[in-house]
Amino acid sequence: MKLFVNDFYLTAAEVNAQEEMPLSRLVTLIIDTATGHANLLGFGYAHMMESNTSWVLSRLSIDIIRMPGVNQSYRLLTWVESVNRIYSERLFELKDTETGETVAWAHTVWMAIDMDSRRPTDLTCHKALVDVINDRPFGGVKGGKLQPVHDGAEGYDYRFKVSDIDVNRHVTTRRYIDLITDLWPLEKYMADRVTRFEIAFKHEARYGQESLTLMEPTAAVEGAYDAEIRVGDTSCALARISFSHRDMSGE
Amino acid sequence: MKLFVNDFYLTAAEVNAQEEMPLSRLVTLIIDTATGHANLLGFGYAHMMESNTSWVLSRLSIDIIRMPGVNQSYRLLTWVESVNRIYSERLFELKDTETGETVAWAHTVWMAIDMDSRRPTDLTCHKALVDVINDRPFGGVKGGKLQPVHDGAEGYDYRFKVSDIDVNRHVTTRRYIDLITDLWPLEKYMADRVTRFEIAFKHEARYGQESLTLMEPTAAVEGAYDAEIRVGDTSCALARISFSHRDMSGE
Repeated sequence: MKLFVNDFYLTAAEVNAQEEMPLSRLVTLIIDTATGHANLLGFGYAHMMESNTSWVLSRLSIDIIRMPGVNQSYRLLTWVESVNRIYSERLFELKDTETGETVAWAHTVWMAIDMDSRRPTDLTCHKALVDVINDRPFGGVKGGKLQPVHDGAEGYDYRFKVSDIDVNRHVTTRRYIDLITDLWPLEKYMADRVTRFEIAFKHEARYGQESLTLMEPTAAVEGAYDAEIRVGDTSCALARISFSHRDMSGE
Repeated sequence: MKLFVNDFYLTAAEVNAQEEMPLSRLVTLIIDTATGHANLLGFGYAHMMESNTSWVLSRLSIDIIRMPGVNQSYRLLTWVESVNRIYSERLFELKDTETGETVAWAHTVWMAIDMDSRRPTDLTCHKALVDVINDRPFGGVKGGKLQPVHDGAEGYDYRFKVSDIDVNRHVTTRRYIDLITDLWPLEKYMADRVTRFEIAFKHEARYGQESLTLMEPTAAVEGAYDAEIRVGDTSCALARISFSHRDMSGE
């Protein structure tokens, strides 16, 4: 099965003040859908553990044409684009089920790290993974290199709490994304919409650590901001987020 | 359909550091399941809006025999126990699908408030609701009256952010429950488990408001604490949470 499909319906309980899917929900759905495909094909977390390795999401970028809205059905499609000795690229297309229209594209980069050395392991030895490589066309833009923010970037601090911690005792991806989302006030999201989001996961944060989430306008890119989550001097995540004014007439 | 069934499987991505379902996830699942039953029977939010009323969850209590664990299937059953002029009681039983064992019971109290006056409306005029009253046995304990905490209660403050806001521009139920969960450190949850949780929703909080979440041991009840979420002088929620030591041998 070289193309995996995840159908879902977005209820009122799942949407934000803009009646749209929150960015953190879209990212966790992308991760869950990748996991579902990997499990089905026999190279999920359980299989990787047999060789003392674990999947780690390294980078993710999403191009959002239209964020999924309330009370509508969507279809998220995913496939493996490439596999090499260090990483595997997995792509996603999100479609409005009713109209068939593509509403988002996503690109992800995964590594299988050795649980002891924490080093990437050779992915080309996983035949089931190599066998499903699919050259389906991709309409998004792959992630580029992200930079730490500079001195003088604005932000806020937050200490990680019980509700932020996952089964591996690390801070959840959801909390990382929400920390970045929360850099802007509600008014910003009423006036503007997110058109692109890119993140590189650098280091896992833990319970009780004090984080600093920072942002600054991206030099020479209109409407874009660089963001960073830090714990002390350690960079836990680098991100870039792009906004466009909402079209009040059309949306 | 006097009994509504919601089957689910708990994945690793959904569980906390104890490899169990987070309390906030259990509460939102209970609300979503109630909504699913009401929609199916024609007295969901959309139907209530036709008479300018909206369902409001007023109180909830959960008795937890064993919190759902990772990589297992569960079945949540719900039914309407009573309907009167002011409120309706809806009950829940949560079962381990494999063993058939009951792992939790929940009791909820709902009102349909008029959107203009914010007063409760007469529920006995909703025939479809009255028609599904079910006297199925309930093994939990219904909620009692909850008290505000006293001067000297311990806690922390938190300003509500974009990621905490729902489609009605109110703070989400998930954030309320997580605020209470986060009153205790991770070590508390490793040593103890939650056996009972009760909450009364008193007032809706909004974006940007500064909250104070407080707790104190419940007088004369071993292992229980009273908790309260306040915005200024307004009490937004009152809760009581009971812990027992985990049985290290048996669990």
